[in-house]
Order: sequence, then structure tokens, then C-alpha cells
Amino acid sequence: MNGLRAGNRRAAGRLITLVENHPDAVEPVIHAAFPFTGRAYVAGITGPPGAGKSTLVDELIRAVRAAGLTVGVIAVDPNSPFSGGAILGDRVRMTRHSSDQGVYIRSMGARGHLGGISLATSNAVTLLDAMGKDVVLVETVGVGQSELDIAGATDTTVVVIPPGLGDGVQAIKAGIMEVADVFVVNKADHPQAGKTVADIRDLLRMEPRPREWVPPIVQTVATQNEGIEDLWIRMQQHRAFLERSGRLTARRRARLQREIVEIAERKLRLAVLEPRTDTTEFEELVDDVVARNVDPYEAASRLLGRNAHNGMGRTEGSMTTC
Amino acid sequence: MNGLRAGNRRAAGRLITLVENHPDAVEPVIHAAFPFTGRAYVAGITGPPGAGKSTLVDELIRAVRAAGLTVGVIAVDPNSPFSGGAILGDRVRMTRHSSDQGVYIRSMGARGHLGGISLATSNAVTLLDAMGKDVVLVETVGVGQSELDIAGATDTTVVVIPPGLGDGVQAIKAGIMEVADVFVVNKADHPQAGKTVADIRDLLRMEPRPREWVPPIVQTVATQNEGIEDLWIRMQQHRAFLERSGRLTARRRARLQREIVEIAERKLRLAVLEPRTDTTEFEELVDDVVARNVDPYEAASRLLGRNAHNGMGRTEGSMTTC
Repeated sequence: MNGLRAGNRRAAGRLITLVENHPDAVEPVIHAAFPFTGRAYVAGITGPPGAGKSTLVDELIRAVRAAGLTVGVIAVDPNSPFSGGAILGDRVRMTRHSSDQGVYIRSMGARGHLGGISLATSNAVTLLDAMGKDVVLVETVGVGQSELDIAGATDTTVVVIPPGLGDGVQAIKAGIMEVADVFVVNKADHPQAGKTVADIRDLLRMEPRPREWVPPIVQTVATQNEGIEDLWIRMQQHRAFLERSGRLTARRRARLQREIVEIAERKLRLAVLEPRTDTTEFEELVDDVVARNVDPYEAASRLLGRNAHNGMGRTEGSMTTC
Repeated sequence: MNGLRAGNRRAAGRLITLVENHPDAVEPVIHAAFPFTGRAYVAGITGPPGAGKSTLVDELIRAVRAAGLTVGVIAVDPNSPFSGGAILGDRVRMTRHSSDQGVYIRSMGARGHLGGISLATSNAVTLLDAMGKDVVLVETVGVGQSELDIAGATDTTVVVIPPGLGDGVQAIKAGIMEVADVFVVNKADHPQAGKTVADIRDLLRMEPRPREWVPPIVQTVATQNEGIEDLWIRMQQHRAFLERSGRLTARRRARLQREIVEIAERKLRLAVLEPRTDTTEFEELVDDVVARNVDPYEAASRLLGRNAHNGMGRTEGSMTTC
């Protein structure tokens, strides 16, 4: 933990790997790191594959460093089985920033996060925050609900939209409009970029309620480092808005509350459900469902009911409500 | 239930809506329908927005009908807040097939599925199966983990890839290669289609272990009804393979087992966690976490520990392991 707090990248890497691979290590490590957290500005960056996020984040790292701040990046790809830096784009970035002790980049795939990738991401953010990083960027690939959930569990959520998505903007708008604090239309030199900006503006205009913070739409050409400065300014403006309005505290509190409930769910599953599903009784119960003698809801009640009897004492009263 | 079993579309619509909107109705409705299930061939069709799935499924409906079979379609869009047929493409399809009693189409968005969209989809499949549909198609928009999970909980999973995705095939390969039973390269008249087919073939070739079933790659131009017959033949071949090899039973059993566990998790959450998070004690606990006096894992244990004391009798023994 001392190495981590001193900003040592190897120490950070070792601890994140430890927490990813050894369930028993999670609680003591987070317990030790947690008191030193709450200082980092955490921003999520999400968007579909091909939006140019990798290059954009690379340039954003430079902008943050140019402002004299240290930065940690967690690149989450729920569809990748790899973890620990095996994703190609990240390797390139890591090499590029390898001599800069103020930058730490970590890839996370879906493998080995039995507690769920969102908890694994929270833990990595906790460790980079405790490491003393001023800014933590959580990059997620994709615009599915899980990616949006991960990217949205931050102070500021940046949504990167590639130009020429056509109906795509329409198709993905629902989940995105709720979480986006800043829009980026990357590849702004693309002929369709203007239309994409106009589409997003229309969607914002059509919203039923006025917002206190209207998400700005930043145009960037990440490959030519255009618009990155502007993006970083907009992100900081959003953070200032959150602080000024008292929402930073509210947002972070809500995030921690969700995290506690998520951890409790996992603990409950491990303690109550898993020991009971690895039994011949459960196999027989599943056979009964396959034979259509028992429906899945009834089977679930029996699974919990038997559990209540065997493992948890006089609990029939409360478990009958299941 | 009689109306549903007679294949009445209004009855089906009413029951699906009931199950979606009234948590108390889920168990009796599924209990009544479940004995009549297990006969439908259930296929998932997934792919990114813009792959042309909507037109493809529309043509597939015609092919299935031409074979003399009835078909139900559940169009799931986890990113849409709408449910019940409000998605544009589905409205068009519904109108087109509205005079054909052998077709039933239902859209499902993310709203109102507190039990999770995957359980809601399972319930809808159960009802269409009990309705007597020979084929049930589950269409999901997106290639995130949740979409793949939904599409993969079927007998056959069809993955639709648009041509010219570039690095996209590479980016999304991990989750997809595991679940795909049949690949479709739609818009096969696109100049990049050949390359996309070759890319998928390469990915299949690079797999470490030989497969008993190698996913075929079907080229279609859905807008011109090209290749649809071939797709339907490949899907039936896959189904025949599953039956011949005994995997159909194994796959369906595994699906039901996951469903039971998922329902049990939800019951546990509703019975144990939710009543405890709506208390001032929990608010104070969250305050302690915000103040960094307690870490989230410790808070989760306290949430469950207090719970164990108050609501569940002599359960300290088993809950201490949390």
C-alpha cells in the first residue's frame, strides 16, 4: 500500500491484479486503500467501436499532463476476454507513455471478474484514486447498458459519437441521453460530422424538461489533436458545475450507495445461493423443471426455502415471502 | 390462458403486458403457461445497429411461414425505454403481418423490467411457446454482453455482421465467437462484404480447438430477399445437429438452470436487501462510507449483518461468512 500511495506503477499493477484474481484479497486491499480516496476527478468515456476513443483518450492524457496533473486510465472492454494490458490499442498507448511516471494505464476485460466487471472497475478506480492520480479516466467500448452503467458511474460522462452513424444516433439515444454530460463528435473532418452534431442538438432540444447543465457537443479530430483542449475545458466546466450546484457530493454518494448494494448482493449470492446450487438436490429440482413438473419460479422458491431450513435457522417466516 | 393456448394474439399481448407491468402476476401466469412449453424452436438474432436485422427478421418470418410454421418474434432493445410495440421497425413489420394470425411480434424495451430484461425476455418466450408458436425469434439490438446473453439463451444464435465493419469484427470477436451458431453477413452486395466473410472465416480458423459444429457464414441481401432461404436451412441444420448430438437437451437444461438461479437472486434481493436499504440506518451507513470511516465492503457486511439479526433469526453463523 505504501508503494501504491507513493504513486509506484508496479505497486498499482500488482494490487489491481491481486484484487482481480484473488477474491480473498479484495476486502483487505480496498479496506486499506479506501481512506485515501475521494480526491480524484473521475470521468467516463464511452462510445461504439470505431469511434476513435483510443486515440482520443491518448490525446486527452497529453492534455491532462500538460495541465500539470497526473492521470490514470482504466480501459474496460466487456467483450474482451483479456485483462491486464493485452488490448492492442492500450499496448500502443502504454508504450507511448511508458517513460512518464505521471501516467498509469490499465486494460480490463471480462475474464476473471466473477463479482462483475462494474465492481472490478470500481475497485480499480479506488486504487488509482488512492495512488494519488488527479484524474482517472474510465474508457468503455460499446454503448450497451453495461458499458453505459460503467461509464456513468463517474463524475463526468463523455460520450463519443462517430459521424455518419445514420439511424444509429436515434437507435442508441435513450440510454445515452440520460448519462451524457459531454458529447464528442470525433473525426469531425468527416463529411457527415455536421449532420451528426445537428442530430445530437435536435435530440437535446426535443427533451421534455430543461436541464441545468446542457451537454456541450465538442468536435474533435483526435488523430490531429484538434479539439482536445476544448474537450478538456468542457470536462472541467462540468466538474465545476457539479461542485457549484452541490451535485458532485450527491452523485458520488449515490455511486457509493449503489456499490454497497451491489457488493451486498454478491455476498448474499456467495453465502446463500452458490452453496445450494452445487448439490444433487438442485440437480433433481432442475430435472423437475425440465420435465415441466415444476415451473422456474416455484423452483427458485424451493431453492431458497430449503436453504432457509438447512442453513439459516428459524427463517421460514421471512423466506416464505420469497 | 385458454385464449393464449388457442393462439389468440390479443390474449398473448395482454398476458405479456400483464407480466411486464405487474410483478404479482408473473408467478401465477408462468405457472399456468409453463407446462405447455418446451416445443418451440427458439432462435436468437443479434447484431449491431445498422446491420439490417429488422429487414432480415421480416424476411425470415416469411420463410418460416412459407414452410408452414407459425412464428413469434420478440424484438428486444435494451437501450430503448419503450415497450409494447413502439419501436419503429417493429411497427412496420407488425402492420405488414397484421392479417396473418400465424405471426406474433412483440417489442420489449428496458422500461419496467425491474426483474431484468433477460428474465422478462424468458417470460415472453415462455408465453409464445405456450401459445403454440413453432418458432420463436428473439431479436436483440447491439453486441454488448447483455445483448449476447439474451440472444445466446436460445437453441440457435444467429449473429448478423454488417460488411465494412473494419476493426469492428476484431473488436467484438471475443463475446461473439462463443455464442454464434450461424453468422450472417447481410448487405452482401456491399463492396466490403467479401472481406468481412474472409475476416470471420479467419477468426474461426484461428480458434484453438476444433468444433463439432463450425458456424456457417451466410450471405444475405435482406432488402432483396436474397439468401434468406439459405439462412433458414442453416438454422434448421444447426437445430438438427443439436438434437442428433444430444446438445439440445443439455443446452435447454442449462438455460433453465440459469433462469432458476436468476429468479432466486431476484427473490433474495427483494426479500432480504431491499427492505433494509430503505431505512435511516442505511442512510447513516452510506454517510459513514462517504466520510471514509467505513469502506464499501465493510458497509455491505454490516447491511447484511444487521439484516441477519433483525429479520432472519439465528443466522449470525451463516451470515458472518459474508
